[in-house]
Amino acid sequence: MTQPKVLAFDVFGTVVDWHGSVQREVAALLPGVDADAFALAWRAGYQPAMRRVMSGELPWTLIDDLHRMILDGVLRGLAITHLSEAQKGHLNKAWHRLDPWPDVVAGLTRLKSRFTICTLSNGNIGLLTNMAKRAGLPWDCVLSAEVFRAYKPSPQAYLGVARVFDIDPGQVMLVAAHQDDLAAARACGLQTAYIERPLEFGAARPKDVSADPGNTFHARDFQHLADQLGFES
Amino acid sequence: MTQPKVLAFDVFGTVVDWHGSVQREVAALLPGVDADAFALAWRAGYQPAMRRVMSGELPWTLIDDLHRMILDGVLRGLAITHLSEAQKGHLNKAWHRLDPWPDVVAGLTRLKSRFTICTLSNGNIGLLTNMAKRAGLPWDCVLSAEVFRAYKPSPQAYLGVARVFDIDPGQVMLVAAHQDDLAAARACGLQTAYIERPLEFGAARPKDVSADPGNTFHARDFQHLADQLGFES
Repeated sequence: MTQPKVLAFDVFGTVVDWHGSVQREVAALLPGVDADAFALAWRAGYQPAMRRVMSGELPWTLIDDLHRMILDGVLRGLAITHLSEAQKGHLNKAWHRLDPWPDVVAGLTRLKSRFTICTLSNGNIGLLTNMAKRAGLPWDCVLSAEVFRAYKPSPQAYLGVARVFDIDPGQVMLVAAHQDDLAAARACGLQTAYIERPLEFGAARPKDVSADPGNTFHARDFQHLADQLGFES
Repeated sequence: MTQPKVLAFDVFGTVVDWHGSVQREVAALLPGVDADAFALAWRAGYQPAMRRVMSGELPWTLIDDLHRMILDGVLRGLAITHLSEAQKGHLNKAWHRLDPWPDVVAGLTRLKSRFTICTLSNGNIGLLTNMAKRAGLPWDCVLSAEVFRAYKPSPQAYLGVARVFDIDPGQVMLVAAHQDDLAAARACGLQTAYIERPLEFGAARPKDVSADPGNTFHARDFQHLADQLGFES
C-alpha cells in the first residue's frame, strides 16, 4: 500500500458534531421547540436538496442557500412565523459554527505534520473557512464541491482532489464517517479511512459503526487514525 | 472607512520572492546559465500566456501548465536540450517552492488574529497549498483563479472573494505589490493595500514603489500593514 500524500476529510459528522451544535443553537433561539427533531429534520433535507441540483432541477447552488431553503420548510412545518429575517439568517449560519469532536484538533495537527490535509465537503468554501477559523481546524487547504461544481458522491469531486495536487487518485485518502461516501471514493481509486462517530445523530440514536473490509483503515477517531498511519502516540 | 473582514493577498511578488527563489533553483540545476535573466524571461511569459487563455485562444489552463509551456520556450531559446523530463518537471515546480519575504509569516500571523486571510492568486490551488505548507504561510483559505475560472484582473476573481464569504466587496481588501492589480480590485469596490517590494525583480533592478493615493493603505511590508490596521506592535 502506497502512503497517501493527501488526506481529504469529509466534514459534517466526520470532523464536526452537526447534531449537537445545531440542536444547541435551536434550543437557545426557539425554547419549547424539540431541538433534537429540528436538527434531524434540517439535516434530512440535505441529500434531497443536493439531488435536485445534480439532476438539473435547480441550478448550481451553494450549501448555505440549500440550508436556507430547507430551514424555511422546517419553520413552515412547525408554524414558526415570529423569527425576523436577521434571526433566520443567523440561525442558518449555525452550520458555520459547528463544534469539532474532541479528538479533531489534536489529531489533525498530528496528521498535518506528515500529510497535506484538506476538506472535501459539499459545504461551501465560506462556510468551511468560517468553521475552521472558529474551531481552530488547521487545514492546509479548503476544498469543496464549490471548487469542482459537483457534490459528492459525484466522481468529479473525488478525482478533483487528485487533479488539484497533480497526483494519482491512489495517493489521496478520503477520511469519512459515512460508508457511502467512502465507497464512492473507492470506486474512483482513492484510499479510504472510516471514522466511527457513533453519536453523529445524537446520544439517543447511536449509529452502526461496523467495519467495512473495503476500507484501507478503520479508526475510532483521528488520533487512532494517526496511530495507524505510523505516528508515535 | 469600514474595517475589512477579509484580506485577500496577491502571492507572486507580494508574499514570496519569485525572482530570488527561481534564480536559486536555476543556478543549482543549470550552472553557467544566467539564472537572473532566466527567471525574468520565465516570468515575462506569464501575462501573455494568461491573456491567451482569457481571449479564448487556449482553453482554461492551470498556471502549472502555463509555467511549463513558458519554460519549454525559454529552454528552447537557450538551446538547453540535456534536461530529462523529470528534471524539467521538478524545475517547473520551483514555483511551488518560493520563499516568503522576511516579514511575511510573522505579519500574516498578526493579521490572521483579526481578519480572515486568504490568497487571491492566479496560481493554482495545488501550487499555493504546497507553497504554504513549505513556507508556513498560515492562510485561512486558499483562493485562486482556479476557483473562479478567471484570472485577475478579471472582475470575477475580485468579486468572487466577496461572494465566497457572502460579504460586500468593500469588506474585502486586496493586498498586493502591483498597482495594476490593486486598480482592478478598486474598480470592483474592494479596499486596497499596496506593499512595497522594491527587490521583486532582483537587487539589480529596484522597482518604483511610489504611493498611489487611490489605495486605502500603503505599507513597507506586512508588519507595517498590521501596524496601520491598528494592531499593537
